[in-house]
Amino acid sequence: MDYYSSQISKLIEELSSLPGIGSKSAQRLAFHILNMPIEEVRKFSSAVIEARENVRYCRQCYTLTDNDLCPICRNANRDHKTIMVVEDTRDLAAYEKTNKYEGVYHVLHGAISPMLGIGPNDIRLKELMQRLQEDVEEVIIATNSSLEGETTAMYISKLIKPTGIKVSRIASGVPVGGDLEYIDEMTLYRALEGRTEL
Amino acid sequence: MDYYSSQISKLIEELSSLPGIGSKSAQRLAFHILNMPIEEVRKFSSAVIEARENVRYCRQCYTLTDNDLCPICRNANRDHKTIMVVEDTRDLAAYEKTNKYEGVYHVLHGAISPMLGIGPNDIRLKELMQRLQEDVEEVIIATNSSLEGETTAMYISKLIKPTGIKVSRIASGVPVGGDLEYIDEMTLYRALEGRTEL
Repeated sequence: MDYYSSQISKLIEELSSLPGIGSKSAQRLAFHILNMPIEEVRKFSSAVIEARENVRYCRQCYTLTDNDLCPICRNANRDHKTIMVVEDTRDLAAYEKTNKYEGVYHVLHGAISPMLGIGPNDIRLKELMQRLQEDVEEVIIATNSSLEGETTAMYISKLIKPTGIKVSRIASGVPVGGDLEYIDEMTLYRALEGRTEL
Repeated sequence: MDYYSSQISKLIEELSSLPGIGSKSAQRLAFHILNMPIEEVRKFSSAVIEARENVRYCRQCYTLTDNDLCPICRNANRDHKTIMVVEDTRDLAAYEKTNKYEGVYHVLHGAISPMLGIGPNDIRLKELMQRLQEDVEEVIIATNSSLEGETTAMYISKLIKPTGIKVSRIASGVPVGGDLEYIDEMTLYRALEGRTEL
């Protein structure tokens, strides 16, 4: 890319190393940045570095946060006796957007995957078990509906059941608005298995 | 987004203000950045700020560069008597990638658009005319094949013709590999008009 000067090339290169940003998008973004007012660029650049420098795991639920405790764990109005177990912080955010969940979370940062060599000790499972020694009524397992997510859900439920704490799994089935015609067999089968009486 | 801590929210907000980055992509990018090694993030952040701080227009062709003269204008092996006129630096980069053009460029930074109120004085046209006082043999107009690009091409050619310098326009037609069936009428018409004898 010697038709761009070195600093522009470097910027394009850095941008195209981000996931989902191809070389065309990287060029578009680079020229957008080069045309932004310089104070805006400084703000952008410091948001990036500050977020990265200050990010840490919540001491309790292990979500990414910039405090010792995340806003959810700090919130006394939440139901701290119900813990939803998710694979990552984005899954937590997805459930928060529903505005329907009152409990707290536990972020595993991954799922058990024998294929990728990720075992129970590679995710935040020990930390979850420790939390269960306090006053917990229910653990809702909301790992993904993938092979790894299901394996993890099974593993966790087996681990928790002896403690007598209620363990549940979010429902698997046809998405709202989904057209049966376009839904895969496995999902249709799950939806049938999980049917509820009307 | 109070389910993310403030610095993570700020990062997501900054990322989603970039063109073509929606809120989902911004979240994905943010968590990618938060998981990057901190030195990588510092490198990224400084590439952004350095490129923006040092970028300027090439004194001769007005492309974006970080030097007084861009690498192409500095290159003595290029044919400085042939100037290709393009709308922006990315168009220049597109032609450079062909590896077939030996001349130099002139970047207008826009095109004449009565609709958007962009007139001949709002683009780097005066600067082009000044360059023509030196030893120039041909001006190739490579503005886009849009209404604005065509208007600009017509305007420039009328301005240059009296000087006796050769003015040409890049061909408009069916793209290589293009299937006639899927090509719009205007392009097909242009391809017909611009046919060359075999």
